[in-house]
Amino acid sequence: MSKWRLEGQPLAVSLGDPAGIGPELLAEAWLQRRAENLPAFFAVGGAEVIAAAARRRGIEVPVRRITEPSQAQGSFAEALPVLGDADGEYRPGEPAPEGAELALASLTEAARLAVSGAAGGLVTGPIAKARLAEAGFAHPGQTEFVAEACGVAAGDAVMMLAGPSLRTVPLTVHAALSEVPSLLNSELIERRAAITAEAMRRDFGLERPRLAIAALNPHAGEEGRMGGEEARIIAPAIAALRARGIDATGPHPADALFAPHERDRYDVAICMYHDQALIPLKALDFDAGVNVTLGLPVIRTSADHGTAFAIAGKRQARPGATIAAIRLAGDCAARRQGK
Amino acid sequence: MSKWRLEGQPLAVSLGDPAGIGPELLAEAWLQRRAENLPAFFAVGGAEVIAAAARRRGIEVPVRRITEPSQAQGSFAEALPVLGDADGEYRPGEPAPEGAELALASLTEAARLAVSGAAGGLVTGPIAKARLAEAGFAHPGQTEFVAEACGVAAGDAVMMLAGPSLRTVPLTVHAALSEVPSLLNSELIERRAAITAEAMRRDFGLERPRLAIAALNPHAGEEGRMGGEEARIIAPAIAALRARGIDATGPHPADALFAPHERDRYDVAICMYHDQALIPLKALDFDAGVNVTLGLPVIRTSADHGTAFAIAGKRQARPGATIAAIRLAGDCAARRQGK
Repeated sequence: MSKWRLEGQPLAVSLGDPAGIGPELLAEAWLQRRAENLPAFFAVGGAEVIAAAARRRGIEVPVRRITEPSQAQGSFAEALPVLGDADGEYRPGEPAPEGAELALASLTEAARLAVSGAAGGLVTGPIAKARLAEAGFAHPGQTEFVAEACGVAAGDAVMMLAGPSLRTVPLTVHAALSEVPSLLNSELIERRAAITAEAMRRDFGLERPRLAIAALNPHAGEEGRMGGEEARIIAPAIAALRARGIDATGPHPADALFAPHERDRYDVAICMYHDQALIPLKALDFDAGVNVTLGLPVIRTSADHGTAFAIAGKRQARPGATIAAIRLAGDCAARRQGK
Repeated sequence: MSKWRLEGQPLAVSLGDPAGIGPELLAEAWLQRRAENLPAFFAVGGAEVIAAAARRRGIEVPVRRITEPSQAQGSFAEALPVLGDADGEYRPGEPAPEGAELALASLTEAARLAVSGAAGGLVTGPIAKARLAEAGFAHPGQTEFVAEACGVAAGDAVMMLAGPSLRTVPLTVHAALSEVPSLLNSELIERRAAITAEAMRRDFGLERPRLAIAALNPHAGEEGRMGGEEARIIAPAIAALRARGIDATGPHPADALFAPHERDRYDVAICMYHDQALIPLKALDFDAGVNVTLGLPVIRTSADHGTAFAIAGKRQARPGATIAAIRLAGDCAARRQGK
């Protein structure tokens, strides 16, 4: 997995909002391609934007326009390949409607290439959802957009956060905390955990992945004294998963689950809500967190951070998560292709 | 703060459940007193239990019975001082009613000595609440017990978790997650945050402590799209705290709040629920987390772990949190005494 690979289909990387930190991190990732052992990738659109972002960052990144994904490998060693003519002006920190349109065009085309098989996988740049919505984007986020492009129900596209220390899956995501208990049910837990287990096998090379299922309540509810969801909802889902031969344990008290010696005991933690999954991930792996969409016919990853308009173009954005997202997409793609 | 101190009032350490890991960790802490630069302390009761626990652990810890706290300093360099005759048999991993009675007697006497001023502070050993309740303990936990012993309303005794990386205060503790939103209100947040700020000044030597107030909902509710508690409850409390001259900021999205660069920006994070405070603490500082009770006339700390009956007597229990709890109590006591 770890030698520099230029064989196989290249990865398609969408630009993200051109006013955010996406373009400069794309350029920086290409610059570090050898040191970081990255698979070949190409940007979809934004050649001028990326070149300007690289100049602003003070790094030398030659950009080469390509017209077919298959041309990416030939260019990748010498110049960052950029597919197509979609482009715009680079105005870091100043998001605008034209930028949102460019981001949407890049995402749409990158997803199309991944679904068609012309790209080996999809890495998406950070977007501003509210602005993309104004440009006609009708999905809660990129995950749902990519799921639809694949013909997969949004509920079966499972978000996983992966860092060097930890992998977590939040079963509920963009919901108020007060709504979380009513959004959970045994079927949801079983279905998404099973999708996770299958993806761990297929894309992460774990023959018998170990799933730790978190409790919802403190101390896992202390036998019902602090909430009954563990017995009513979570434990039956775990029993059903085990009956299917999946190595699922829990419900585990969430506070202890992310302690160092506990983390050695599972491959992925299935979490009941957004912050339960994201707090430990960001505390431990802040600059290297990758958002992976499981359960799709395509590989899709992204850096687990936003557009960060406030620091765009200021040489402050750190490329670790973008590099990790590209590397992980390449690793997963290689496993699917049996390489 | 950091040289070995045998001056000042010694700390009273309660035994905890004698069938748990409390006694062996007490012995281990004494053994490491010089290397760890611990202030003088004495155990309250359990001389035979501690001696047996030390033997089982394979460490040489001479125990010396004392009849007054003031005798502790004279003994501490040579032997672990144990106050009083309350004692029992050492049966690790086998909790029994007599053990719960011993734990309760030790806690009661240790708290009394701290309140009277005969002890410089109180460090409590781990108990099993359900078993202590059977022995007549009518409080939800040791924090509430100590608060009552001090004549402080339980709601004004603020639990803080302190580790090398992070300090957190959970505003709600032993409640089902579904009940958390209804338990929060602006007055509660303001009151406990103000108690925290005052304790940070008095006991932790921070002239102008920086309080980061966590949001309840993911992304701090995204301007009300995922929950309204931030605008309705949390922001008004922060405004009130700032009007009182307290450096409170937020509501901060909880997932980002515990990332490394964010942790540098505050001295304590005020959290809305148990796992929000405990997940990052245990992920980062598992073996060194100290539970501190703020807002009391006495210093009170404890190791942030339970009785761990399953590993008691097996030489597996790690003493880091007990040592940290004793050291922190000594540091806070020294500050109060102006040393």
